[in-house]
Amino acid sequence: MHMSTKTRVAVAGASGYAGGELLRLLLAHPQVEIGALTGASNAGQPLGGLQPHLVPLADRILEPTELSVLEGHDVVFLALPHGQSGAIAAQLGEGTVVVDCGADFRLADPGAWAQFYGGEHAGTWPYGLPELPGQRALLAGATRVAVPGCYPTVSTLTLAPAVAAGLVEPEVVVVAASGTSGAGKAAKPHLLGSEIMGNASAYGVGGTHRHTPEITQNLSGLLGEESGTVSVSFTPLLVPMSRGILATCSAPLRPGVTPDDLRSAYAKAYDDERFVHLLPEGQWPQTKSVIGSNAVHVQVTVDAAAGRMVAVGAVDNLAKGTAGAAVQCMNLALGLDEGLGLTTVGIAP
Amino acid sequence: MHMSTKTRVAVAGASGYAGGELLRLLLAHPQVEIGALTGASNAGQPLGGLQPHLVPLADRILEPTELSVLEGHDVVFLALPHGQSGAIAAQLGEGTVVVDCGADFRLADPGAWAQFYGGEHAGTWPYGLPELPGQRALLAGATRVAVPGCYPTVSTLTLAPAVAAGLVEPEVVVVAASGTSGAGKAAKPHLLGSEIMGNASAYGVGGTHRHTPEITQNLSGLLGEESGTVSVSFTPLLVPMSRGILATCSAPLRPGVTPDDLRSAYAKAYDDERFVHLLPEGQWPQTKSVIGSNAVHVQVTVDAAAGRMVAVGAVDNLAKGTAGAAVQCMNLALGLDEGLGLTTVGIAP
Amino acid sequence: MHMSTKTRVAVAGASGYAGGELLRLLLAHPQVEIGALTGASNAGQPLGGLQPHLVPLADRILEPTELSVLEGHDVVFLALPHGQSGAIAAQLGEGTVVVDCGADFRLADPGAWAQFYGGEHAGTWPYGLPELPGQRALLAGATRVAVPGCYPTVSTLTLAPAVAAGLVEPEVVVVAASGTSGAGKAAKPHLLGSEIMGNASAYGVGGTHRHTPEITQNLSGLLGEESGTVSVSFTPLLVPMSRGILATCSAPLRPGVTPDDLRSAYAKAYDDERFVHLLPEGQWPQTKSVIGSNAVHVQVTVDAAAGRMVAVGAVDNLAKGTAGAAVQCMNLALGLDEGLGLTTVGIAP
Amino acid sequence: MHMSTKTRVAVAGASGYAGGELLRLLLAHPQVEIGALTGASNAGQPLGGLQPHLVPLADRILEPTELSVLEGHDVVFLALPHGQSGAIAAQLGEGTVVVDCGADFRLADPGAWAQFYGGEHAGTWPYGLPELPGQRALLAGATRVAVPGCYPTVSTLTLAPAVAAGLVEPEVVVVAASGTSGAGKAAKPHLLGSEIMGNASAYGVGGTHRHTPEITQNLSGLLGEESGTVSVSFTPLLVPMSRGILATCSAPLRPGVTPDDLRSAYAKAYDDERFVHLLPEGQWPQTKSVIGSNAVHVQVTVDAAAGRMVAVGAVDNLAKGTAGAAVQCMNLALGLDEGLGLTTVGIAP
Repeated sequence: MHMSTKTRVAVAGASGYAGGELLRLLLAHPQVEIGALTGASNAGQPLGGLQPHLVPLADRILEPTELSVLEGHDVVFLALPHGQSGAIAAQLGEGTVVVDCGADFRLADPGAWAQFYGGEHAGTWPYGLPELPGQRALLAGATRVAVPGCYPTVSTLTLAPAVAAGLVEPEVVVVAASGTSGAGKAAKPHLLGSEIMGNASAYGVGGTHRHTPEITQNLSGLLGEESGTVSVSFTPLLVPMSRGILATCSAPLRPGVTPDDLRSAYAKAYDDERFVHLLPEGQWPQTKSVIGSNAVHVQVTVDAAAGRMVAVGAVDNLAKGTAGAAVQCMNLALGLDEGLGLTTVGIAP
Repeated sequence: MHMSTKTRVAVAGASGYAGGELLRLLLAHPQVEIGALTGASNAGQPLGGLQPHLVPLADRILEPTELSVLEGHDVVFLALPHGQSGAIAAQLGEGTVVVDCGADFRLADPGAWAQFYGGEHAGTWPYGLPELPGQRALLAGATRVAVPGCYPTVSTLTLAPAVAAGLVEPEVVVVAASGTSGAGKAAKPHLLGSEIMGNASAYGVGGTHRHTPEITQNLSGLLGEESGTVSVSFTPLLVPMSRGILATCSAPLRPGVTPDDLRSAYAKAYDDERFVHLLPEGQWPQTKSVIGSNAVHVQVTVDAAAGRMVAVGAVDNLAKGTAGAAVQCMNLALGLDEGLGLTTVGIAP
Repeated sequence: MHMSTKTRVAVAGASGYAGGELLRLLLAHPQVEIGALTGASNAGQPLGGLQPHLVPLADRILEPTELSVLEGHDVVFLALPHGQSGAIAAQLGEGTVVVDCGADFRLADPGAWAQFYGGEHAGTWPYGLPELPGQRALLAGATRVAVPGCYPTVSTLTLAPAVAAGLVEPEVVVVAASGTSGAGKAAKPHLLGSEIMGNASAYGVGGTHRHTPEITQNLSGLLGEESGTVSVSFTPLLVPMSRGILATCSAPLRPGVTPDDLRSAYAKAYDDERFVHLLPEGQWPQTKSVIGSNAVHVQVTVDAAAGRMVAVGAVDNLAKGTAGAAVQCMNLALGLDEGLGLTTVGIAP
Repeated sequence: MHMSTKTRVAVAGASGYAGGELLRLLLAHPQVEIGALTGASNAGQPLGGLQPHLVPLADRILEPTELSVLEGHDVVFLALPHGQSGAIAAQLGEGTVVVDCGADFRLADPGAWAQFYGGEHAGTWPYGLPELPGQRALLAGATRVAVPGCYPTVSTLTLAPAVAAGLVEPEVVVVAASGTSGAGKAAKPHLLGSEIMGNASAYGVGGTHRHTPEITQNLSGLLGEESGTVSVSFTPLLVPMSRGILATCSAPLRPGVTPDDLRSAYAKAYDDERFVHLLPEGQWPQTKSVIGSNAVHVQVTVDAAAGRMVAVGAVDNLAKGTAGAAVQCMNLALGLDEGLGLTTVGIAP
């Protein structure tokens, strides 16, 4: 008798953007069999009307997001509004790998959770950014993974080598221009196409965006324990595109640091990483190069007159910024090849 | 000794949009090894600066488009401006499969070629639209394939079942809204982002677009020999998106034809086609659902008051509209599974 | 004692797109003083948060849409969802000019109203398209005006000269690509920026869009009384831009009609119209040229092979397609210069 | 005998984006009569084919950019590539007001010119940003005006009150997201619609953009003479829209500075300015609100955790960022009302 050796996965929140991207990637994953798909208000509807690009799943009916539906899968992906993952996860045994695309388990500091999200802190799970020093080992064999936020992914990876090597003062400024899919599929007037097209705007200005403490946590973790925290000034922008984030990051250079020092630090950090690409000198990242891919493109330079390092990173917020990272973490958790089902090739133009 | 069993392919015109999309698809094709990449004015440059999304090929150097570079491959894809394929193809022996993404070998009628393109007609190759009745057999084992134009692909597939079944008068009206990548990568003022964004325009109005005779040829071929030709009124529009064509097609209904007759004809034509999807009743195609995929989405209805059938089709002009069709045809030519390296899953949002 | 000689106007529905565009135009109108502004759920809020582009009115507070607020103005503009204008209008005496931007009073045929809108037909008011033969006289001094729909405006003006002169068969096909502002400011998932950008789609296919009977009424009115009606096949498309409609219109040419006949008919119809521009031969309309303006750009040609006339028109759906027409009609109603406060100059790029 | 009292103006570079916007504004200016329009390679062509939105000037023929064409006007606007204004201006006597939209006469420091532009420094003219302290007086009656660059306009106005009042350390970070029209109408592959749509990218990173020394000059001029210069880290981004710049500006707060201190400084600076609007607390600028207008929208806050002020400004790069400023400066130079022909009302959505 032949038993399927494929991993059976469920996706909770299959009608949203993160859920849809997860399914797009999972359909191309050679070791995965797609099990239950759940929705909230959309339960009972066929997926084809909600995600018409997912042709092979068009006839699948969304089920309610409940234990009875999700249990019995090898892996459960949660693509739910923040605050909902904890209750579901608590019901799923350790025999099920749970990969949470939401924010519930990202922060280590309950005070930061309370300040930025409110309500009770659900806990802290292994943080799904394997390209951070030491992080890959924590994800191997994990049964719970907190997928990073989209802004923290690109901001952290764009700054980490310089911060970790002590080449810059721990006072970073991040201005990140994002497409609109990061804001989700819930209909709000300011996200209408009529408002978004031809428009750029800032929001969460002054350090109030919920991804701020996550960036702070990531970068501070790169300093030695006695080194205190990294100060992060983070401003997100909304620009007229569906996908992609371009993060412009800078910090004061430490005395004597040369462009070569920076380039060496970035090369050392990323030359062996398959999903983070330090571009050739003089070539700057653009979001279009990474759309649909799990790649992050990074470049770094020195502004000598201003005495600052400037680094720029590009990511697809839905792919490596959410669903691609989730699949990458599943691969690590299951002991599969880390890149299975993922690509470094973007879709352009 | 182990010999690679992979098919070795070259791409002539690798720096353009069609060439880039071919490479994106070929990188994901399990039976292909990518050989020479050629360019014209870009020869000598690394591909990474020209197609930064193709990370695995970033260090490849473009070579000149010459026989000495292209010969010795199992398959040569030509993604060249029209008029250049004939000379190259003539030098490549029948031992090499040549798949031409240009227009040179699409038309059977030298008069139509002369009228719409000018210059000498290079000849006629098997036409790479396997979903047309009888066409798949002509492509199996072919050593030369003419890939259809992007507008003809979607217009033909959207109208074919109704025309072939005689459900409409042979007088069709096609208005097709296209993204800009179909116009290529050559810099022209009217194609600048500043001009394109926020703008819709018509061009080639009055039947002057070069794809008109190709649509006519395809649809007329569906009629019996004695039935004359189909009259095609074709108007292309340029709308602000990079990829995708939405073709709105209509024709006078023949007396007594019902919506069910139409739906049956479309279902019969496409239920067994893996890349053409007749959507569920009431769901209309959108280009976003097919971006990056080899799928065509189609829907059909009756406008009873106007006495017309109206059908709408969506395609990614660079994928199924060019490069995807080229890979599909290569698969057929080589006897591989027709869908190898291709997907029906679009990337959205 | 000095009395202001300015016309005092109120705008009901000031927080929506049509209301906002009305206010943008009225702020530039030399003979107008802006009075009450009303909203529904937004009543009580300052306009600045809802229409931040209307700087001079930022501190105005929206009032409820009630008789007590609207009465006492010289002119009341209604920019309300269809079905709401009738009740308000009935309460305003004939001493107040009422210009309705909604659909309630456009159709003459109660049967068409019932079929396409449902509910009771409110009545029929003078139709605000002064460029139609004989229509300007009906608007001069009118106290009630029904502003045409956006699609009917451009479709009618693009086809009228050919239909009126009997140069084409009365069987027209209209495919009109529209920006999203025509769908209004109510938040719906399919109108989100993430869905709209990079996407083209068809809707209301098969003659079901509510503007269909209005186009039919306009064009049929150009035929002699005994000539029956014009058959209209109308398909609207949604394309990724905020404003603008490009209408591609065609019809079978009557025998013997030449391109010169068409051009003469269009020139005769529009040479004396200040807001409808027949472009020079060979130049085709684009929406960007008319954004923010009251202009309609039109071009016409013959597709000899298909035996059809093809004409293309461009309009700003919010300007000449709604609010500009409303101001133009107010000017006519009040006996002012027809073009006061309006421009033919678009904003581009 | 009646003499026109209108000011007769010429526009050199009428086929470009800045020239087109100048003409759009001048057509609405009550005291202006439009004289000669010149082009370079386009001389001899009618304007209608190049700027189809400028309907009233469609039949105007572009003349060569020569003294014989430009002399005899009251005002000459130069909208030429940098480096060309000097030679023309030198030929025009002081009886002609020359308003240069290019960079030639903006910088006071020949060394900065040599470093960022190269070639010989043409000189320094009164700088056309009347909202800077003391600047309006220098422009009144001027016969030569250097219109500021688009990025410097918005960056300077967004930072000036805080810098001038000494509320922040003189080390500013500016990340400015711009539409593509700032890059001009010359066709370059990376500016194609296919490349721009769905894409965000950084350029001129590391302080190499030519507007950097202009921002430095403006902000440093606000400090006392002995206070040295302001350090400016400037990164421009290209985002998918035709018009508009959103500048995100930050700097370390000086000790003890409160949000109220900042707000007061901004209010004091701009409450009497008709074209710079400090938005109500909590409302953040968006480019769409200022498109087509001469307005700049500004907001400021404190990021207490990061110890920084963050201010955001929005401008239409072609309007207040170029052509609107040029008209405003002409008004000042001629002693007209400063706002004649200009509006604070943007076109949205």
